[in-house]
Parts: sequence; C-alpha cells; structure tokens
Amino acid sequence: MKTKFIDENIKYIGSQLVPHWIYKNFEIQGDAIVAFVGECKVDLSEMVDIEDVINNEPIYSKLMLSFISEQFNVGLTEAVLRQRLLITIIKELLEERGIFVIRNGDDLMIDGRKLSVSIATKSITSILIHTGLNIISEGAPVKASGLQSELGITDVKEFALEVMKRYSDELEDIVLAGTKVRGVYE
Amino acid sequence: MKTKFIDENIKYIGSQLVPHWIYKNFEIQGDAIVAFVGECKVDLSEMVDIEDVINNEPIYSKLMLSFISEQFNVGLTEAVLRQRLLITIIKELLEERGIFVIRNGDDLMIDGRKLSVSIATKSITSILIHTGLNIISEGAPVKASGLQSELGITDVKEFALEVMKRYSDELEDIVLAGTKVRGVYE
Amino acid sequence: MKTKFIDENIKYIGSQLVPHWIYKNFEIQGDAIVAFVGECKVDLSEMVDIEDVINNEPIYSKLMLSFISEQFNVGLTEAVLRQRLLITIIKELLEERGIFVIRNGDDLMIDGRKLSVSIATKSITSILIHTGLNIISEGAPVKASGLQSELGITDVKEFALEVMKRYSDELEDIVLAGTKVRGVYE
Amino acid sequence: MKTKFIDENIKYIGSQLVPHWIYKNFEIQGDAIVAFVGECKVDLSEMVDIEDVINNEPIYSKLMLSFISEQFNVGLTEAVLRQRLLITIIKELLEERGIFVIRNGDDLMIDGRKLSVSIATKSITSILIHTGLNIISEGAPVKASGLQSELGITDVKEFALEVMKRYSDELEDIVLAGTKVRGVYE
Amino acid sequence: MKTKFIDENIKYIGSQLVPHWIYKNFEIQGDAIVAFVGECKVDLSEMVDIEDVINNEPIYSKLMLSFISEQFNVGLTEAVLRQRLLITIIKELLEERGIFVIRNGDDLMIDGRKLSVSIATKSITSILIHTGLNIISEGAPVKASGLQSELGITDVKEFALEVMKRYSDELEDIVLAGTKVRGVYE
Amino acid sequence: MKTKFIDENIKYIGSQLVPHWIYKNFEIQGDAIVAFVGECKVDLSEMVDIEDVINNEPIYSKLMLSFISEQFNVGLTEAVLRQRLLITIIKELLEERGIFVIRNGDDLMIDGRKLSVSIATKSITSILIHTGLNIISEGAPVKASGLQSELGITDVKEFALEVMKRYSDELEDIVLAGTKVRGVYE
Repeated sequence: MKTKFIDENIKYIGSQLVPHWIYKNFEIQGDAIVAFVGECKVDLSEMVDIEDVINNEPIYSKLMLSFISEQFNVGLTEAVLRQRLLITIIKELLEERGIFVIRNGDDLMIDGRKLSVSIATKSITSILIHTGLNIISEGAPVKASGLQSELGITDVKEFALEVMKRYSDELEDIVLAGTKVRGVYE
Repeated sequence: MKTKFIDENIKYIGSQLVPHWIYKNFEIQGDAIVAFVGECKVDLSEMVDIEDVINNEPIYSKLMLSFISEQFNVGLTEAVLRQRLLITIIKELLEERGIFVIRNGDDLMIDGRKLSVSIATKSITSILIHTGLNIISEGAPVKASGLQSELGITDVKEFALEVMKRYSDELEDIVLAGTKVRGVYE
Repeated sequence: MKTKFIDENIKYIGSQLVPHWIYKNFEIQGDAIVAFVGECKVDLSEMVDIEDVINNEPIYSKLMLSFISEQFNVGLTEAVLRQRLLITIIKELLEERGIFVIRNGDDLMIDGRKLSVSIATKSITSILIHTGLNIISEGAPVKASGLQSELGITDVKEFALEVMKRYSDELEDIVLAGTKVRGVYE
Repeated sequence: MKTKFIDENIKYIGSQLVPHWIYKNFEIQGDAIVAFVGECKVDLSEMVDIEDVINNEPIYSKLMLSFISEQFNVGLTEAVLRQRLLITIIKELLEERGIFVIRNGDDLMIDGRKLSVSIATKSITSILIHTGLNIISEGAPVKASGLQSELGITDVKEFALEVMKRYSDELEDIVLAGTKVRGVYE
Repeated sequence: MKTKFIDENIKYIGSQLVPHWIYKNFEIQGDAIVAFVGECKVDLSEMVDIEDVINNEPIYSKLMLSFISEQFNVGLTEAVLRQRLLITIIKELLEERGIFVIRNGDDLMIDGRKLSVSIATKSITSILIHTGLNIISEGAPVKASGLQSELGITDVKEFALEVMKRYSDELEDIVLAGTKVRGVYE
Repeated sequence: MKTKFIDENIKYIGSQLVPHWIYKNFEIQGDAIVAFVGECKVDLSEMVDIEDVINNEPIYSKLMLSFISEQFNVGLTEAVLRQRLLITIIKELLEERGIFVIRNGDDLMIDGRKLSVSIATKSITSILIHTGLNIISEGAPVKASGLQSELGITDVKEFALEVMKRYSDELEDIVLAGTKVRGVYE
C-alpha cells in the first residue's frame, strides 16, 4: 500500500470519497492511503452514511486531518474491519504520545469528546475509507476534541505519516500472517 | 456469535484448534467463541504457525486463559483481521482496568513482557482463532506477563466474559456497518 | 433477517427495488424482507429484467402483494437461488391452504394462470429481490390468478407474515446447516 | 451439469461422498449429478453430518435411490441452497405424480413418514451433495416412507432421470437468470 | 461462452463497453464474445482506462476488428487474466499464419508497431473486455500495424471466428481443468 | 511475488506440491515461485492430476527444470489462468531465443514433441502450480523435447530466472491493471 501526505490544503466535502480520486489527482495507482489537512463540510446530499442522513447529521470540522484510502479486491465486511484497524492504529499512536483514548467502534473519544469521523464503503471496483480527525474542535456540531486545540499535537503531518506507515505495514503483515499457517482438519 | 465460558479446566495442546471442536464438545453450532482456563502446552507437531515450527518455538504456559473462536464464510485475510480485532478488544479491556498494554500485531506486551499467544487459520469449512493469555507467567519460555501473577486480575472468568461479549457485539456491528452505506461512483 | 408488513398502501413502480429503500423508509437495517399491498405498475424504463424490456412486457397488477428483500454479502447466482427459495416457500404455504400450485423457475402458476412476478438483482453493496403476487387478477396483461379473486385468500397480511417468517427462518437454517458438516477429503 | 443413472447396484456407505468419486468411477468430469440404487448404511464414523453423530443417529435404508452431486466454484451457504433446490424439485416431481409431500428444510415427509436423507458439504475444490430416497421403508431407523413400498413408484430409474434433468436444467437457468438483470443504484 | 461475428459495420466509440450491450443488441444471453468491424474512436470522456485519460491518449483507428466479451461471476483480477488469455490467443493465431508478434501485457506489437488496444473492467453484475485490432493502420495516433495494411490478412471475419472459438474453448477447458485435480495437504 | 532459483539438485517426486513447501524449505513466505533442476519421477500415488491417474500415465523426466509456485487468496479457476500465464511466458521466452513453440492449453510442444508437464491445484489456504520443462528428453514416456538435448539451451538457470522475473512482474501488472479502470454502468 502506497502512502502520501498531500501538502496542499484540501477542503473535504465528501465528493472525494469516490473510486480513483487518489489515482486521478496524485497518480498513485493501486492500494493507497493519503492524508491532507483542510476544512471538512459534508452536506447530507454527499454523505455515504445513510444513518447520518436519516438522523440529519451533516459533518463539519473547521480544520481536519483527513485520511482517504482506496483498496482493491476486498469485500464489504472486510472493508469495515480494515477501517477499524485504521482507527485502532490512530488510537495506539495517540497513546504513545500519552493521550488516553476510548475507541467505540469507528469513533475515537477523548474525555467524552468526539475526535473522529469515519466511514467505509464500496465502489464497483474497490473499497473506500475516510477517517477524519479534528485538528481544531471549535465549530463542530457535537462536543468535540481536536488534535491541536485539545491534545496539543502540532506536528500533524508527522503524526499522519506515522499513522499511514503503521497502517500500511500492518495490512501487509496481516496478509502475510495468512500465508504461514497450515490449514486444519477434523 | 454465540459465547460461552467453560468452567471445567482444559489443558490446551493445540489439537483443539480444529473445525467443530466447539460444536462437538459444547453443542454450540455456528459462529462462536468460547473461553476456558488450563495449562497450555503445544508441541511443535501440533502447531499451526509454521514460523514457530521453523524457529523451534513450542508454546508453554502453566496456566492460561484461552479463547477459541470458529467462524464460517470468512476468507483467510479477513480471518487475520478478525483475530486482530480480538487482540485489540482484549487490550482495550485491560486499559479500562488501568493496565497499559502495547499491541504489536497479534502480540500483547506489558512492560516488555509477553502476555499473549495467538493464531488464526482455516479449515475447509471455517476459520479458527486461538488467543491465549497467561494467567501465571512462571515457567513461560520467554519473558512473560500473567493476568494474575503480574496484573492482579483474579476475576478471570468475568474478564473472559467481557472480552467475548464485546467481540461478539463488535463483529455484529461491523457486519451491520456495511449495510448502511451507499455505494460510490466515479 | 428482519421482517415487516407495512400497513400503508404502496404503489410499486419498480423504483423501490434499490439499495437501502427498506432502511431509508422503515429504518430496518441489514438483511430484511418487507411486504406491502398496492397497485403494481412497472414501466419498461424502470424494469431490471432486460428480457422483459426486450420483449416489451411491462408489469401491471391492479392490486398486488409485494415482497422486497435486501440481503448483504451475497453473490449474483446465490441471489437467484435465494429468490427461488422465496418462491418455493410461497408455493408451499399456498399448498397448506389447499391450493395446488405449479412452480416454473421463479413463476407460480395456478390452473395455467400466472400468480406471480419476480426478479433478483444486485447493487454495489447488496442483492435485491422483488416478488409480487396478484391479489386481484383483473386487468393483468396475461392470464392471471389472484390471491383473493381466484384463490379466496382474504387474510393477505397474515399470509404475508407467514411467508416472511418462514423465509427468514429457513435462510437462517441454511446458513447454520453449513456449520455442522465436516469437510471431506479424497 | 452432466447427469447419469448408474445401472449397477451400489451400496452407499458414505465413503462415496468425496471429491472426484463421480469422475474416478464414471469418468464424468466437472459439475455432475449421478443416481443409483442400493442399500444405504452409513456408520457414524463415515457421516459428515456432525449433528447426527452427536445424536448417535446412523443412517440405514434397505433399498435407497441415491443422488450424488459434485459442483465446483460454489461456497458453503450456496451449496446448501443448491441442496434445497434438489429437494424442492424431488417434491415437485412427486406432486406431479399425485403424491402430497411436506418439505421441512432438507427433509421430505409423506403422511408423517420420512422419505429422504440429505447432506451438503465441501471439499477443498468442490461442494458435494447426497440425497437419498427410500425405495423400501422396511428396516429404517425412523418411521419411513418408500418410493415403492408406500408411494407405488416402480419406475425408479425414470423418476431419477427426471429429477436429474430438471435439477440440471434449473441450475443452468438460475445462472442465466443472473445475466439478464441490470444492476441497481441508489 | 457464446460467440458471434456481427456482419454489420459498427463504429466503436466506447459506449458499447457496458453491461448487456451484447444481450440487448444481439439477444445473446450469458457469457459471450462478439466481434465486429468498424471505425474506432473513443473520446476521453468515454474511456474506462484512467491511465489513458490522465495521459490524454484517446483511441483512434480508421478500421478496427473489435472483440467485446461480457462474462459473469468473475472478479477483477481474474478479468484481467481472462483478457491476457484473449491477447495470447490472438498472438498464437497470428503466429500460425506466420506473423511474429511480441506480447507486452495486453499490447500486441509487430516490428515495433502497435496492433492492438485492450481493456478489462467491471460492472455491478459482470466483467467486460474490449480488444481491438487495427485492420488499417493509417491515421492511428501511434506507430501502428494493421491486420490488412501490414499483415496481409484479408479474411478478417474468418480470423475473428477462429479467435472467438479458441477463446471460448480454452475458457471452458480452464474451468474443467480445475475439476480434475485433487486438493493437496500438508 | 518472491522468486528464487535453488542451486541444489532436487528430485521432484510430486510430494513437493504441498502448501508451505517453499516456506518450510527456503524460508520464503507468501506468494512465491521457485525453480530447481533434478530428476522428475511422479508415481501415480503422488499425482494430483486425476486424469493422468485414470489414464495410468505417471510422469518421468531424467532431468527437468521445475517451477513451483504457491499463491494465496486465489480461487481454483483463477489458479488455472495463472498457470496458463506461466506457460505463455515460458513460450514467449523460448521465442525470443528463436525457438518456435506451440501452446496447447498447459502443454508446450516443439516439432510435435512434448516439452512440458504442468498442473495447478488448491490447498486449504493457497493454490499451487508445478510446471516442469525437460532438460534432457531421453527416457521420457512420450515423444519429448528437452531444453538442452533438443533446443540447445545450456544456461538453464538464467532461463529460469528470466521466466520467474517475467511471471512475477506480469502478475503484479495484472493486479495493478484492475486498479486503473472505472467501473461501467448501464
């Protein structure tokens, strides 16, 4: 899996969670995860989480660190498992910086405040994951925590690079783990 | 997914990691996770982790809390992802009891000591996961930590029940998460 | 699989056979089957059965009992097998009421008259099945039979609830049946 | 799917439900269903239905019409659906001969008597189905019905040929049915 | 797999590479490959090869022999393997006519001139392959070879029929090849 | 995919075509292809090709260049397609050395003499391919060609390394090819 931090500021409006957005914009082909920083404003019409649409809960963050990953030859349930792994790795990297985080499914909570949004879905040829971490919590529609505003993380790019490296490494390790076990019989 | 704590002491020797062991012994059919306590001694001839066989590393624990899960209609890579989720949930429950744990793939480490062993594999009709946590670390072949000997957890059964409940709940939630997202288009 | 009879009259025009129609309208998430009663009028532009489009055979029923099912993590051939099971269960419930029915693939025929229409298809994230049974045969484009007009079934809701319960039960039983057999070897 | 009625008498003891039994013995390669007549005696050690092993219920029939089908590139749940289709087709052919049959999952019952046994399982490369119909009910371990002894069917070979033809035709039709529907969108 | 040479001249503009184009236009249902002759002009907006779009490389051929194949129940990587097989078979048939061809992935090169274009993609219910061979090389955007202009092949229809027959035969043989091998064990 | 030429002489007797033979013997984990030289003598009892067993055709070669590949997360039909690709690449490399080769499915023929044997099969966790090329044709059970005895290829190791590199590269390219195409719609 290729990884890339995109230095330009990108406003995430949901329309980026489509097949080949990474390939078309950054010429990174195949399984990939990229990260960027920018405002996040996903209107109901762009949301892929129908539960949020039903509950009329658009997403907003004044400044967010967004991860987008596209992966191929993966089913829908496995896509969600791969999303949970990304969330877990983010939690673990925050812990290494001394921040205590509660994971609740695909949500990360700190002191009862929501740090993250995340969704995993499918296209005809791939699965797509978006995970966003507030950098600044001010203006969020729910009680929120921000990497910088509450947690004091200012090296957002370094943090993002660590997340992507560990995610990429662990997915490679997971695929390999299946290749070193003998099948079992009754 | 059905869950059950088995009250009788069971020595885990590896031969239990076979299809329908849960069904045949406890009449629990379908996706299931069970837990039990007992000595753990897996000789090389019974190991499914070929890496351990190559490295000549048999498994031993004087007293271990073992989880065995059998799940159906799951591929090999997804099996490893489901194993990692189980490890993550164990870590998170230890954290809720104030114990700081490092996860390294499918290993749990506490103060540089190994708490766990784990493997995921396939049979013709299912995938199988074994995860064991030392209760007593004494006698382990590597520097080990034990739930009771180092971490002071004496309500092992309650801990196991919490692990299984949360694992079962999250897997159900993960399958459901895939059913509430609209597919995306280019 | 969740089941629900929708009491309001719904005109089926084909546009309901789309992913998450059940979830968005009735907040039933995941594998589900619902039933409702109403006029059925599917124009060629809305039909998913291309054979009918080629043959210029739009669907019409003055009053129809419609079943819509959405199921996840199922392939296309398996979707058709699950459709045939639904048809078979409807046939068997009619037989229990003393009505002799001929099944011809996904068609139910009574005395040479067509009782049913049915189709199974895929979306990016799910499979979808529609099966409709005429309640009143008058006005149908082919020689038709109706649950009420020809067969004297007036408790349409009770009949629909029985169909859905048995379908849901048998699908659960089918998944379980795969978990109790040992794999075989040469 | 190729079909063949084997004229020689074959005692079914369970060991025939293995991959390539059809190919090795009758040189029919690929998806196939064959039928033969003979005593049926499956000891517990040969049974693939673990539920029957747990319940200590070996299978016996003095004279049975057995169908064995091997099919490739099919998953476990789909295998059970394909088994249910075979059962349904047998039921429907009996009905055409004026015999009223109750299907209960993979069991066929006539006047409260059991006509059939059936199982579906997997090998590494295929799925395998056995369905047996008593020809003579005498000596069965449960209250049984027999094609000849109770139902008066003496042209067992013709009946078997009809079953196999219709099963083969409908499976082909089912695969084709998936090729004539447009995918649907939200 | 059904095969058909379409005698009418068809201009290929990319919009034909969609599900059920073969079925709707020629009433050939299920796995199929068809061939036709005509100008080929695929604008960037119709291309499915995003690499070509990024590189701004529309496709043009004054006269092309086009093959379109739609196949069901096949994954994305397998689709590309099936495309490569088609390319290989074309190469081998040219060799039988004494023409030396270099295959480079899905490209066929003759004396450093490009003979072919090809792409494989997915729809919700199928995979689709287009392979085009220049008949006349004049006017191509790159240094090209043509079946007629450079290679002297004038019986284009016969050539196309041979390609389709061999492709259909070998795919059938490939599926069968998987049904005659015993699974292997550790 | 990892590649390795094994310098020691290895007699191929069929028992090497099992899961993890590469991993256990050469510590190469995951998708891999290895090559070695040695006598080839596969008795009927070790053969995975049941057709050869039925036809009583054991395999023998006085000196053979054998390729063994193990690949994970691949189905049975795709395994055969990947075998055909390997055969095609061998043919193409021979052509580059000026040798005209006829491919007939998974057989390579030169002047009516058989150069190769090949089989693809499955284990519980992987697919396995063996392809062998005679180096010396003398003593073969059929009219055979040998890389050295008939074709004058003496740098067998270099040839093998080229085959493995090109196979590994093309499989990587094939997986990537599926990641650069947009899905298509009706």
